[in-house]
Amino acid sequence: MGGDGRRIRIAVDCMGGDQAPTEIVHGALTACRDESLRILLVGVPEALAPLVPPDALRAGRVEVVPSGGPIPEGAPPLATLRATPNASMAVTMRQVAQGRAEAAVSAGSTGPTLLAAVREIGMLKGVRRACVGRQILGLHPETFLVDLGPTMDVEPRHLLEFAVIGATYMRVFCGISEPSVALLSNGREAGKGNRVVKETADLLRRSGLRFVGSIEGHHLMSGAANVVVCDGFVGNVTLKTVEGLGRELAAWLRREVRGELPPQRIEDLAVWLVETTNQIDLHGSLPLLGIRGNVVMAHGASDRRAILAAIGQAARAVQSEFVEKLRVALDQTRQHLSRPVETR
Amino acid sequence: MGGDGRRIRIAVDCMGGDQAPTEIVHGALTACRDESLRILLVGVPEALAPLVPPDALRAGRVEVVPSGGPIPEGAPPLATLRATPNASMAVTMRQVAQGRAEAAVSAGSTGPTLLAAVREIGMLKGVRRACVGRQILGLHPETFLVDLGPTMDVEPRHLLEFAVIGATYMRVFCGISEPSVALLSNGREAGKGNRVVKETADLLRRSGLRFVGSIEGHHLMSGAANVVVCDGFVGNVTLKTVEGLGRELAAWLRREVRGELPPQRIEDLAVWLVETTNQIDLHGSLPLLGIRGNVVMAHGASDRRAILAAIGQAARAVQSEFVEKLRVALDQTRQHLSRPVETR
Repeated sequence: MGGDGRRIRIAVDCMGGDQAPTEIVHGALTACRDESLRILLVGVPEALAPLVPPDALRAGRVEVVPSGGPIPEGAPPLATLRATPNASMAVTMRQVAQGRAEAAVSAGSTGPTLLAAVREIGMLKGVRRACVGRQILGLHPETFLVDLGPTMDVEPRHLLEFAVIGATYMRVFCGISEPSVALLSNGREAGKGNRVVKETADLLRRSGLRFVGSIEGHHLMSGAANVVVCDGFVGNVTLKTVEGLGRELAAWLRREVRGELPPQRIEDLAVWLVETTNQIDLHGSLPLLGIRGNVVMAHGASDRRAILAAIGQAARAVQSEFVEKLRVALDQTRQHLSRPVETR
Repeated sequence: MGGDGRRIRIAVDCMGGDQAPTEIVHGALTACRDESLRILLVGVPEALAPLVPPDALRAGRVEVVPSGGPIPEGAPPLATLRATPNASMAVTMRQVAQGRAEAAVSAGSTGPTLLAAVREIGMLKGVRRACVGRQILGLHPETFLVDLGPTMDVEPRHLLEFAVIGATYMRVFCGISEPSVALLSNGREAGKGNRVVKETADLLRRSGLRFVGSIEGHHLMSGAANVVVCDGFVGNVTLKTVEGLGRELAAWLRREVRGELPPQRIEDLAVWLVETTNQIDLHGSLPLLGIRGNVVMAHGASDRRAILAAIGQAARAVQSEFVEKLRVALDQTRQHLSRPVETR
């Protein structure tokens, strides 16, 4: 991890997100109380100066890396990144690209974050599209859904990459030694699925992963596989359907049992219902996967607590050597697929 | 409606479904107590004879239309229909095609039912793919999701047709005079969505329908539009995710509040939760839309009660002249789209 003793260096985009820079900087300052971390605060120096106490700088736990401002919400990502190469998000990613940090955290919009990461850090060999995954139902933390957003229009090779990425994630972060992998589809039988799903099944069977076939939406909800693979469009609709249904049912429960249970008990049940179905809002950060470095996207609305959690997630990714393990897994899959197809 | 006075004639496939022929025939016999109906029992005469009382035949409320057996579960639909042109399902559809019935009901598998309907009855002019839609959340009966299954790989023109079909359905069956139409997507902003969704938005804007743009999964769950359009793959995953999550949460609720509420009250809450999220299991039948005639697919597990309900649904489709109204709506949409594009 080089450079600064054994400290993990994390670059934090202090200008991105609804509550930047104040809440971002506060979260980062809290994080760097952990002596194993050193935080690079990336941002406009004049904006950060009043927020960063001199003793934190003197103690060497944080440093300020000067940059421009944020990428404005809704601006066309590619054109904006080209026009403002020193935007805080780009400079944050550059710290990782140049080996000055082992991980990057940003609460900026997803599109620009993804693009900045790809442009500055690049993709892992064998990964053509970055992806985002998460356990989407608190009831089933053993089930990871990928992709949830960036990649809308996929080909089978992309879904195969998502499968390898998801399986590595569950191995590294959830300690599942040989995660089962399934394709999200409209039926379990062979012949079900759209074109891409059907073609991907053939690839997954030869991938060396523990592929258990196709599963349907209700199997996803009952935790039928450790990694469930779909394109970012389907994943995003599924994720948000679960979030929305959880909130609708929490509201129903509040109305329905009013007066039958103590108010605090009703509130606890409703909150649990929202939490189990709104895991991303709850955890507030998502790893951007497939990049040649650790990038964590914090929720746009992140407060200091959410930023602290995102930095913690980034640090765990570094400690567990996730990117290196993913590189190895991608190599192994390539080897499996290059073997001649068995004909029986 | 010709022929038989003012009676609505409905052809029922008595050989399809898990509980055929006994439960199917029983359901049909119950239905024909309604004097406005005449039921054509399609099936193997020897199998039906013991189930049909002679006085029902004498009274002219039912007749037996001889056919072969069912399409076996899992058989390749097209090859099987070609090889057995007198399969009960094909003969059932043929009654509609030949004007001997105004509607067809079958509890056979979806694939063969769809194919038999298309082959025997044909598509409405301007519809290239049949579809299936339904209100998927009992909490929001004002919101119809289409397609839920048959059509996996779509082009924009297919989604446009689904939109016209869904809007007509909500107009005719739910009395909503100008239903709002939305595309299911991963974001509301322009530029979100996969390729097909983005291209469909352009068509819908010029369609004359009340298009309100793209909505996300949580908007679908909160009833944000009357008709929500997606391909059959996304619709099916969404539907089954809702079904599965409802059942998971009902099980959670049973565990969680045991001892805190009376057992019957807990049971009622859990049953409500399952019912509001499992509308299709509950109603047990789905109209096959876009066909040049009324076809209702009953659930494969249908018992007599479910068949009775499916026949009722078929009768309402005939009475309301759904197919004719859809034909007019498709014409109007074509006219709208043939107007020159306004340039501003």
